[in-house]
Amino acid sequence: MALCANAFAQKADHPITLVIHGGAGTITRASLSPEKEKAYHEALTAALEAGYDTLKKGGTAMDAVEKAIRLMEDSPLFNAGKGSVFTSDGKNEMDAAVMDGATLKAGSVAGVRHIKNPLSAARAVMEKSQHVMMAGKGAEDFARSCGLELVDTSYFFEQHRWDQLQKAKQKEKILLDHRGDTTGALAPGREYKFGTVGAVALDKYGNLAAGTSTGGMTNKKYGRIGDAPIIGAGTYANNATCAVSATGHGEYFIRAVVGHDISALMEYKGLSVQQAAGEVVMKKLVKMGGEGGVIALDRKGNFAMPFNSEGMYRGYVKDGKIVTAIYK
Amino acid sequence: MALCANAFAQKADHPITLVIHGGAGTITRASLSPEKEKAYHEALTAALEAGYDTLKKGGTAMDAVEKAIRLMEDSPLFNAGKGSVFTSDGKNEMDAAVMDGATLKAGSVAGVRHIKNPLSAARAVMEKSQHVMMAGKGAEDFARSCGLELVDTSYFFEQHRWDQLQKAKQKEKILLDHRGDTTGALAPGREYKFGTVGAVALDKYGNLAAGTSTGGMTNKKYGRIGDAPIIGAGTYANNATCAVSATGHGEYFIRAVVGHDISALMEYKGLSVQQAAGEVVMKKLVKMGGEGGVIALDRKGNFAMPFNSEGMYRGYVKDGKIVTAIYK
Repeated sequence: MALCANAFAQKADHPITLVIHGGAGTITRASLSPEKEKAYHEALTAALEAGYDTLKKGGTAMDAVEKAIRLMEDSPLFNAGKGSVFTSDGKNEMDAAVMDGATLKAGSVAGVRHIKNPLSAARAVMEKSQHVMMAGKGAEDFARSCGLELVDTSYFFEQHRWDQLQKAKQKEKILLDHRGDTTGALAPGREYKFGTVGAVALDKYGNLAAGTSTGGMTNKKYGRIGDAPIIGAGTYANNATCAVSATGHGEYFIRAVVGHDISALMEYKGLSVQQAAGEVVMKKLVKMGGEGGVIALDRKGNFAMPFNSEGMYRGYVKDGKIVTAIYK
Repeated sequence: MALCANAFAQKADHPITLVIHGGAGTITRASLSPEKEKAYHEALTAALEAGYDTLKKGGTAMDAVEKAIRLMEDSPLFNAGKGSVFTSDGKNEMDAAVMDGATLKAGSVAGVRHIKNPLSAARAVMEKSQHVMMAGKGAEDFARSCGLELVDTSYFFEQHRWDQLQKAKQKEKILLDHRGDTTGALAPGREYKFGTVGAVALDKYGNLAAGTSTGGMTNKKYGRIGDAPIIGAGTYANNATCAVSATGHGEYFIRAVVGHDISALMEYKGLSVQQAAGEVVMKKLVKMGGEGGVIALDRKGNFAMPFNSEGMYRGYVKDGKIVTAIYK
């Protein structure tokens, strides 16, 4: 890595770029108060500033991704870390992943309940173990052995998330009464936001990185794992093509292998990052019924933020200019 | 699906084909006794016969995949189901996945300890839930709710697997003494077989399906999840291209998104199934250091079984002829 960075440093620096998202779904002007809207813009801006500052100081794309996502994990606004939604049994089960475009190394954790910043645990799996994916208590034991902060489950309690669970359970009860679903594994209603946070970055050495962190789906059951911790689906990075972080109805994103498909369309069909991300999100996913969006960034600093849902919390910094947005 | 099947039934039937594997790795003539070798050929043949019989009777590709893999799961010879290897803490943690090439629907379970046939649990996730992936106790609760057979952990005890764990722990102790690895997450030595079982099938309706099941890695720690249950990595199927099941050093197979990459090379670059599978297994994975192999089958009944390890338990049935093999 040191050698690689030096080799690039001799050329002109690459255009450092950071793109983030804070989840997609049925986010409408009517559903957000002006105060809440302002809070989201501020939280996105803070994450972008912190991550970009890292890049400006010569930090790596992975450092910037971690910095930005940790801030979003620490905010109660996003469905990740502190603001994670509740599972059906009233717990928080979080997933996260990172991938390094220079080495194609990756790390992910799934179903963790005590790790304050799951994104950092995913990075530790990538950097300090021979594995790519760890789940549940094992992942927590590993995080502890790496010196990461573990917290009591009460840390993740947020009243509005608890209220969302009660509402979801009430709705499920009504659905069960009327539809007779016997598996208990209902489709999420369209009113659920697909909360996730993610970041993709390009550092001055020309390396790409991607990261995603999520609290999953409100009222989820059966140890459900979504696309966020699945390398190739919700998280993917490859210097040959792009870095991708997705947010949406995870099941569809897994089946469509979203991250790697965007990369493959660039590598094998010569599509631009905008064309490839658009093809997957606005055509393939729409055809399947998969709601959500992605952020995707190539090695020249070109990026795309397509989403087929009503809104996606998102933002970017390029040439020092910060832009955040929520609606279409 | 019914409509689709009828549409195909009006044309000539597709050439029903079944290809299976029982794991790859350092499998040499010197390491297998003639008795053991015979036992493997017989077990592979039995799985192929059962799956092919299903296809002949008009069963679906998914039915054939499940039939063949369940037989291998029930055999103590393969690292899946009954013959699963032990984790570091002396337990068996199994992963499995299926994917349907006609619908791109998929299901997977990870880290399950009591499900007799994890492959059937993965199929239940696909067919009877709105989710794609479930882990741990949640996946077991779901399997139970679907009426699948759960067994006491003692069912999975096999003396030779226990002995392998003791040997691995002894070797790790020696490695730790000499290398000072502090994470405890050691690379598996080359002497470990990458045990997995998998099947890909083409039915007379022209539909492809893939399935993979594994006990993971001997002495694995921290709830490690490999490539088998990762849709796009160890398991992938798409009628537009091919069905793939992989076996190998899972971490590399996840990072290389093996299954979807083979599919993408066919779809976007026009490679044949043999070219695409060869490109990924014999070039890309070799370059990364990822040992193992895949079975891949297209909709015309063309298939490939490349592996870059010393051996791979494998076999196929085509035009009624059964062929099994172990070494290069």
